Amino acid sequence: MYRILSTQLGAHTGEPVRLAGWIHRRRLLKSVAFLILRDRAGLAQIVVAQPEQRALLEALPEETVVEVTGRVAANPDAPGGVEVVGPAIVALSEPAGPLPFELHRPELSVALPTLLDHAPVALRHLKQRKVVQLSAAAVAGFRKALDGLGFTEVHTPKLVASATESGATVFALDYFGRRAYLAQSPQFYKQMMVGVFERVYEVGPVFRAEPHDTVRHLAQFTSLDAELGFITDHRDVMAVVRAAIAGMVAEVSTVDSEVPGVPAEIPAIHFAEALELVGEALGEDLSGEPDLAPAHERWLGEWASHEFGSDLLFVTGYPMVERPFYTHPEPADPVWSNSFDLLFRGQELATGGQRLHRYGDYLAALAGQDLAPYESYLEAFRYGMPPHGGFAIGLERFVARLVGAANIRQTTLFPRDLHRLTP
Amino acid sequence: MYRILSTQLGAHTGEPVRLAGWIHRRRLLKSVAFLILRDRAGLAQIVVAQPEQRALLEALPEETVVEVTGRVAANPDAPGGVEVVGPAIVALSEPAGPLPFELHRPELSVALPTLLDHAPVALRHLKQRKVVQLSAAAVAGFRKALDGLGFTEVHTPKLVASATESGATVFALDYFGRRAYLAQSPQFYKQMMVGVFERVYEVGPVFRAEPHDTVRHLAQFTSLDAELGFITDHRDVMAVVRAAIAGMVAEVSTVDSEVPGVPAEIPAIHFAEALELVGEALGEDLSGEPDLAPAHERWLGEWASHEFGSDLLFVTGYPMVERPFYTHPEPADPVWSNSFDLLFRGQELATGGQRLHRYGDYLAALAGQDLAPYESYLEAFRYGMPPHGGFAIGLERFVARLVGAANIRQTTLFPRDLHRLTP
Repeated sequence: MYRILSTQLGAHTGEPVRLAGWIHRRRLLKSVAFLILRDRAGLAQIVVAQPEQRALLEALPEETVVEVTGRVAANPDAPGGVEVVGPAIVALSEPAGPLPFELHRPELSVALPTLLDHAPVALRHLKQRKVVQLSAAAVAGFRKALDGLGFTEVHTPKLVASATESGATVFALDYFGRRAYLAQSPQFYKQMMVGVFERVYEVGPVFRAEPHDTVRHLAQFTSLDAELGFITDHRDVMAVVRAAIAGMVAEVSTVDSEVPGVPAEIPAIHFAEALELVGEALGEDLSGEPDLAPAHERWLGEWASHEFGSDLLFVTGYPMVERPFYTHPEPADPVWSNSFDLLFRGQELATGGQRLHRYGDYLAALAGQDLAPYESYLEAFRYGMPPHGGFAIGLERFVARLVGAANIRQTTLFPRDLHRLTP
Repeated sequence: MYRILSTQLGAHTGEPVRLAGWIHRRRLLKSVAFLILRDRAGLAQIVVAQPEQRALLEALPEETVVEVTGRVAANPDAPGGVEVVGPAIVALSEPAGPLPFELHRPELSVALPTLLDHAPVALRHLKQRKVVQLSAAAVAGFRKALDGLGFTEVHTPKLVASATESGATVFALDYFGRRAYLAQSPQFYKQMMVGVFERVYEVGPVFRAEPHDTVRHLAQFTSLDAELGFITDHRDVMAVVRAAIAGMVAEVSTVDSEVPGVPAEIPAIHFAEALELVGEALGEDLSGEPDLAPAHERWLGEWASHEFGSDLLFVTGYPMVERPFYTHPEPADPVWSNSFDLLFRGQELATGGQRLHRYGDYLAALAGQDLAPYESYLEAFRYGMPPHGGFAIGLERFVARLVGAANIRQTTLFPRDLHRLTP
């Protein structure tokens, strides 16, 4: 008899079936016992009436892995309207040890460090598991959207010879006697690949030797990166960001019904105007500020919600002075840039913009610096690159905002930070 | 006028169009000039007859990025049966510099080091580009096959606290004042996640401080990893390997018509029998050998091709002594293991098998060792794990065998090895 999943029970009423999974919960009543079995699809209720089976169940603590054969019976009071009766239980693992916390409770109300220390067990909790499912769905949606737009997926080096891309702090390592660094982003590679495929994306780990202990920074996170050529300016990139987010949300909605709406056009506000609005509202003089503080982003998130009914808001035109060297200036007023951040519920979710594409512009942007570390990068521009731009979305941040997690560690599988390198 | 792609020209005969891309080739004949334009979809022929446009084209070397507006005309002699006439050419980049090699030739016949040094340009060659497309298709097919089998995608840490998994040499780095290592595989994490989702996969970079300078080893490669629970033995894992490979080949066939057949059941031979066959054929005494040498794998590849008409061959039951500690022995004869390698055209492509799943078995397998580095890993087993197994496919090796590349560096985007850390 083939194993079926808990969610397939309804189609087998009256038939003998085989289930397998974890003992999610036992309810040992006087006259009867219930075994709630958890498998990858959901939960199944098994009614244990026979004394020898009950004795067996009593010796198998929660999380023991078992196989159960029995007959499916309709019961309107059972979850899903069906349960398994007359079971024969076989343990597939040794009896599980005493759990650090109860997994069958609706909420896993333990302190975050405890939860993270015991991640291999904590992730089995239905709510924790769902977060990982949402994350997988978001990635699938991202890829689906970009595949549909003619993008090609690439996998680029995570070991690089120089840490030249931006000011972010990098991890250094010994590479066969030489110094190497962990890539802080696939920025240079995705730009070079625009010269090959016009449109590329990468889903992969990026590394930041982030010395700050905050709720939104990690030493490793999953970056959803895209880059595209033959654009007019950053607004063409923003349209692709919108498509990517819509794809992510659509796929997430197959796991969870509570998803934000994605407007046909995400509202956008220029950095200068945003600064003015925020300054006025908070009674601060922000003129000349080169960036938005988290509090400012939060205010803008609420403003976008009230003003446009949107969870998403683009802030465009950040001052050139705060953006990396490859940023394209706004042609009419080069103090500002053709760049953007995307705020999701008042927090930075994505960053992107138009890049420089002329070889001469790169030489000018890097004037006074040693060009050797940029040699391969510059080669791409020397041999013809179209106007292009791109963006990066932080996967963990997206999921954190989606589920309303206060700390990004709650939505990261085995997070890495200043203090945490295990599990 | 919206830009169209070269492959869409046929649908616009007689109409004005706008194309954009790279000058792939110029043919400056006496009476007329031809511009072959390359975009992400293919090539387009543009007939340049007007003197001022010709003068412009003469000043734009190959690889300059241009936009071309013109009218589509049928011409049975042109590639695809259509060409663009009466063009107006606008350069979108500066004139490209002198190329290190000609990209428009059917073959890029330059030495591998030159090709790798100039990868940002070399990858633009149609054959090089196709290799990356095949690679992307293979990954998409892998995911599609496993998604269809109820697997969940995960992204696991690449920074780990200990280098305990196997004998492979690892990269060490300073992690905020502590020692950390780059993950040589997601082995421990994918096993732990079997406890959560039963079936998981990961596509991501793995790192090996590989001190050997061979044609099939890299310091970073893309590993297609999967792990599944509730198996009977390694043969259930082999069935999923077969499904994954079939999915990869199916997707690759959308890019390239030349793909290997994947038998409904991939032939399998036990290690002991393989050793005997090879020893007899090559006149070597291989009795007691713990592993197959590359020459033995090549012979077996040819044997499978003759014997079964198959490019693929499983070798099962490798001696326990050569396999990692988490390997499940063959219950009837524990000298051998429930493991396998998959040979593709006589070279190891995938490795996998059944793992231990009982907590007690792990304690026995690790007896005498410090258990501290295994704490989280063991926790998963302590709280109930089903019989499970998994496998890993090397993406670059798959593509190398597929296109018949002698050196894995030919099928790796920006390879990393003992000597190479750029581009």
